[in-house]
Amino acid sequence: MQTFIFIMDIMGVIVFAASGALVASRKEMDLVGFGLMASLTGVGGGTLRDLLLDRPVFWISDPLPVWICLGIATLIFFSAHIIQRRYVVLLWADAIGIALYGVMGAELARQSGAGPLVAIVMGMMTASFGGLIRDVICNETPLILGKEVYATAAALAAAVHIGLCSFGVPFEISVFSGIGAGFLLRAAGIAKGLALPTYKARPGRDY
Amino acid sequence: MQTFIFIMDIMGVIVFAASGALVASRKEMDLVGFGLMASLTGVGGGTLRDLLLDRPVFWISDPLPVWICLGIATLIFFSAHIIQRRYVVLLWADAIGIALYGVMGAELARQSGAGPLVAIVMGMMTASFGGLIRDVICNETPLILGKEVYATAAALAAAVHIGLCSFGVPFEISVFSGIGAGFLLRAAGIAKGLALPTYKARPGRDY
Amino acid sequence: MQTFIFIMDIMGVIVFAASGALVASRKEMDLVGFGLMASLTGVGGGTLRDLLLDRPVFWISDPLPVWICLGIATLIFFSAHIIQRRYVVLLWADAIGIALYGVMGAELARQSGAGPLVAIVMGMMTASFGGLIRDVICNETPLILGKEVYATAAALAAAVHIGLCSFGVPFEISVFSGIGAGFLLRAAGIAKGLALPTYKARPGRDY
Repeated sequence: MQTFIFIMDIMGVIVFAASGALVASRKEMDLVGFGLMASLTGVGGGTLRDLLLDRPVFWISDPLPVWICLGIATLIFFSAHIIQRRYVVLLWADAIGIALYGVMGAELARQSGAGPLVAIVMGMMTASFGGLIRDVICNETPLILGKEVYATAAALAAAVHIGLCSFGVPFEISVFSGIGAGFLLRAAGIAKGLALPTYKARPGRDY
Repeated sequence: MQTFIFIMDIMGVIVFAASGALVASRKEMDLVGFGLMASLTGVGGGTLRDLLLDRPVFWISDPLPVWICLGIATLIFFSAHIIQRRYVVLLWADAIGIALYGVMGAELARQSGAGPLVAIVMGMMTASFGGLIRDVICNETPLILGKEVYATAAALAAAVHIGLCSFGVPFEISVFSGIGAGFLLRAAGIAKGLALPTYKARPGRDY
Repeated sequence: MQTFIFIMDIMGVIVFAASGALVASRKEMDLVGFGLMASLTGVGGGTLRDLLLDRPVFWISDPLPVWICLGIATLIFFSAHIIQRRYVVLLWADAIGIALYGVMGAELARQSGAGPLVAIVMGMMTASFGGLIRDVICNETPLILGKEVYATAAALAAAVHIGLCSFGVPFEISVFSGIGAGFLLRAAGIAKGLALPTYKARPGRDY
């Protein structure tokens, strides 16, 4: 099971690193800047999760995630001009990432003995964190401020996994169900503009 | 005493969660966005404090603070339109929060064996941190950049508590004195615009 | 050797604290705001490093770094108007800081058993982190987004030190070589506008 979790972690690193490198391309950074943004975004969410759960930070003892981030940064530095619509690719990479980390953050919190609510909130926070530092550092509007479902997708991924686990569903099935549910919800947000009802300020009254 | 500290922590969570949810309302987020902003702001300062002092993060083992954040987020999502002036309520909730966390951050640092100066700086940092991430994520101007006393109020709350403690004043009295002093100073900042003399750049010279 | 590392840490604290206080002066903060910005910037990078490596945070047990930050904040609050061009001084203080922390972050990661790649990335991250929170909190454009070499200088400082160490070069020599190389590279960036080739979006196509 630890191998399985490691593979999921690495997949999350890959897609978030790609989203970080794509933001670096939008800011016209140099190659090292690509590497730094890919690394911060790629390992950011997992790092926060490990710090909060008091686990050893996953990329300190094993450099593989960092190599992956730097490799993806290099790849995108030399190839991003081929991509027709970089921002759209960034959105979809980010969508896969939040579904993956939503489930993985929740699962590792569960393994550390946290209850279901804390596990789901941990999933939501670690899924959003990498993208947040990416957007805050680069002065982009954080995706989490968009009108389309975002944090909800991460929360759904975590909740589906935690819920199915508690019903005794086999581990791989609950993981993939969680990732699928979170990704599909976010996909509906990106492609169809699906949004939950938002709070509406009354004009001329609230400030 | 640990019960007393826990109650103070929970009160800090409540007011900061409310300020986070109110910022979410200003950004017209959906219900999950309210929950995330309330959680990040509500537990942010205490989380930083626990990480720095190498204590277990207070909301991981006990989900109560997270339930409170989500409850307050829901409450404010459905009721914020009733509040005439949401930004003012946000300011006052934040003011109570920085006084509470200024004292609590300093107290927990003191219990961990830190000297008075480190305790006061810890109080100031943890009091400001929740509000900072709230404002940075949501692209609001951080309150700490305002002209009115802000960090000073948190520092005063911490210093009064640490000072009275070192004179052997009973614990509850020094805690409430610290909270009272910090809150009153910040209140004078909000209500009367009280400000310390600021650094003034000479026009046309410094850049 | 631990004394030597402590001295390097303190020097890094000094120059980053000065850069934080200078940003506070650009924002016309009050004295406590100067102290908070100097402290956050001065100890920020080292704090992240210690959290990631699971070491005790260096300024919790020993208040000297915090005293230094507050002393420098006070000094700059009362003297910054004497400096003709504050932003330039800020740039150079920051340049010394990233070279110092680039090497120190890498060295402490190495001592914790990290491999060369992780050590270099750790150096790059901890060198950039203090300046990043300084710029993000104060709404300045992060220096890391500038066109001139920045992260590259920190990475070079770390890489030179780690590289020379692995060839058995005496510790002090490899440390000073790393700091010198990183500082000179960043200096060429500040003074001559030296920049690596950046990614260029094709106009009218990428978005």
